[in-house]
Amino acid sequence: MTATGPAGQHTVRRHNCALVLAAVANEPGVSRAGVATRTGLTKATVSSLVDRLVLASLIREEGRQHRSGPGRRGTSLSLSPDGPHGLGVEIAVDHVTTCLVGLTGGTRHAHVRRADNRDGPARTLERVAGEVADALRRAEHDGIPVGGVGVAVPGLVEASGGRVHRAPNLGWHDVDLAEELACRVPVAPGELVVGNEANLAALAELAALRQAGGEIPESFVHVSGEVGIGAGLVLGGELFDGTRGFGGELGHFPVRPRGPRCSCGSRGCLERLAGQDAILDRAGARDVDALLALLDAADRTATSAVRSAGRLLGTALSSAVNLLDVPTVVLGGTYARLHPWLADPLTDELGTRVLSARWHPVEVRASVLGADAAVRGAATTALRTILTDPESFISPGRPPPHADSRTTSSVGSRIDGGSGVSPAS
Amino acid sequence: MTATGPAGQHTVRRHNCALVLAAVANEPGVSRAGVATRTGLTKATVSSLVDRLVLASLIREEGRQHRSGPGRRGTSLSLSPDGPHGLGVEIAVDHVTTCLVGLTGGTRHAHVRRADNRDGPARTLERVAGEVADALRRAEHDGIPVGGVGVAVPGLVEASGGRVHRAPNLGWHDVDLAEELACRVPVAPGELVVGNEANLAALAELAALRQAGGEIPESFVHVSGEVGIGAGLVLGGELFDGTRGFGGELGHFPVRPRGPRCSCGSRGCLERLAGQDAILDRAGARDVDALLALLDAADRTATSAVRSAGRLLGTALSSAVNLLDVPTVVLGGTYARLHPWLADPLTDELGTRVLSARWHPVEVRASVLGADAAVRGAATTALRTILTDPESFISPGRPPPHADSRTTSSVGSRIDGGSGVSPAS
Repeated sequence: MTATGPAGQHTVRRHNCALVLAAVANEPGVSRAGVATRTGLTKATVSSLVDRLVLASLIREEGRQHRSGPGRRGTSLSLSPDGPHGLGVEIAVDHVTTCLVGLTGGTRHAHVRRADNRDGPARTLERVAGEVADALRRAEHDGIPVGGVGVAVPGLVEASGGRVHRAPNLGWHDVDLAEELACRVPVAPGELVVGNEANLAALAELAALRQAGGEIPESFVHVSGEVGIGAGLVLGGELFDGTRGFGGELGHFPVRPRGPRCSCGSRGCLERLAGQDAILDRAGARDVDALLALLDAADRTATSAVRSAGRLLGTALSSAVNLLDVPTVVLGGTYARLHPWLADPLTDELGTRVLSARWHPVEVRASVLGADAAVRGAATTALRTILTDPESFISPGRPPPHADSRTTSSVGSRIDGGSGVSPAS
Repeated sequence: MTATGPAGQHTVRRHNCALVLAAVANEPGVSRAGVATRTGLTKATVSSLVDRLVLASLIREEGRQHRSGPGRRGTSLSLSPDGPHGLGVEIAVDHVTTCLVGLTGGTRHAHVRRADNRDGPARTLERVAGEVADALRRAEHDGIPVGGVGVAVPGLVEASGGRVHRAPNLGWHDVDLAEELACRVPVAPGELVVGNEANLAALAELAALRQAGGEIPESFVHVSGEVGIGAGLVLGGELFDGTRGFGGELGHFPVRPRGPRCSCGSRGCLERLAGQDAILDRAGARDVDALLALLDAADRTATSAVRSAGRLLGTALSSAVNLLDVPTVVLGGTYARLHPWLADPLTDELGTRVLSARWHPVEVRASVLGADAAVRGAATTALRTILTDPESFISPGRPPPHADSRTTSSVGSRIDGGSGVSPAS
């Protein structure tokens, strides 16, 4: 027995608190009574938990629904746009991007720092730490609570924990990114989530498509085309990141198997021949903006460079589509901007090489989020713990049942969980 | 109201009958009391349903468990090896194979007819019909009830229904195989299940690995290497056949994108360069037996031909593994026999090209079933309806609730479902 009562009560409240938050997230505008109906909890329990979530700025309570009778049960509940924000970080070959994304998807303080991150993990980490510290300062200045940090990396990331096995384009081998960053910024390793940038971008794109409404593909390959090329697979509405989290490495599909050496050690990989650097090089353009200017001016060399990349991308994607039978390819990252010039040669190549294409032509579309997808996905992922276990944000001092060391918190402003709320059951 | 009582009772019995059969299938040797515990049905209901299933030869009841007390509840129940068998048919480029597989996996009457099935659907269908008729005659002669027919085809098969969109190696376009076969053999279209041979082979291999016990891979790519090459993807213990059933087309991965024309219309496909015909051609061997003799004698040309195929196979599989992050590749079909010569160059290629291979080397193993996998998978799939809905076998005359036209039955011997069994609830 502890002074705060038997552990079981806290476990129950923790669980119910998550139930209530999920009910509100799934149905913005729901009333307290509606939450009670959907969760099966008593109205009294729901009310005390809603009060707790409102106090923590996780839920916002608005207006009164036009109903007779007393009380505030008729008010409308939704996730709070002023609650905790996820701080997203993308470490790309040629830039570090940061942004803050709130529970309702609103973005603030997006910032891109151009830099060549091929100069080794130590320098890149200093750069990243500087950007994270800047973002935290800006958040504090504006009174935006930060609920966690998500980092997108173009490499193989261990599914649990923050270790990057290999990021060929950064020249990284075995970097414990969560630990290394935690040494440099006021964030605990447990508040850092590290993920593959292509997977995070696909998740963000899926969320954006759902928010936009209309008919959205339930299965697609999202291609993140930057200096490196990665793919995020969405199958039946869910991310499939491989059996151990190392899937989606489209950039290393051999499109010219005896071709030039790639940074991964193999030969003729897609990204070596059709990645951003390869295209800029062939097109004779300094950067993507310059390339787009050439393309707009119908420059023959630039157009041919992009069309050639489109055919190579089609060669690689034909294997992915022949294997997984996905109806849609979404072009993200730099490829989203190049979509008008890439789409035709890519679609032609898929039409020739995909066995089922005669009956089911593959749809090729540009990403809604473009180059912002990965950093948004990183930020959103950082909020996932709060959404599934809001008590971890409300009372960070109290570890959940069966918690590991990764659940203690130190980022941003929190409400201490002194317990005026009676245990729900 | 019908003469046999309200529809609801039949629906309930149908459901409970399936529950009881599943309980026995999942736990061979279980007692009637054990089935009651596991299903939550009353002992009386279980007993009447078990009697019904025993009478239909779906369940076998054996011995007495050493227990005190009266009655036969202590006897041991298992699927009956003498019950309905699935008739499996494999239509390959160079043979038609048939076999009967019982509920417990026992195989009878396996038969291979060598033939060149590239002579158009009409002639091939005559050949297939002849083999099916032979198998049905032999089954009738030996008193083996046939519960359904499954056909494995090397092509794109529509997930629901028996239409083959395209089978490049057979030269088939849009063949309604279920309808066409039903015109030629005493089997209703609804009793014919048509599937892609690589998918059926992967399912059979998964079942065989589970039956063999020990540690088995939960995720693997099963490669069916014949004249054509297909893959069956097992992810987390389940077949993934693509979002519309057209997945697994490994044979059309471009391993030499500007290479020779393939039967699919594209260029440089894996099966064009590393399929059985390509290997035999390069090795100067008449057939696979002759090739194996040359390999056993360490013939340099033959060895080089197979090693070259192994490298090409590795090139294609590196894309599949980079995409899906599967730990294991299973070589099936002819490739299973060539495993000793294929494995090294294949493993080398995967080691170079798969990004995660340094931490997680890809395991390459030979299939347990080899060339028999597809036909076994076809036979087993034909029994699936009986296992999920045993009443469709016991009382074929009575359609299930919401039945489509494909559930009427005419194959083999059945027991008429005159209803001495009281409805279970």
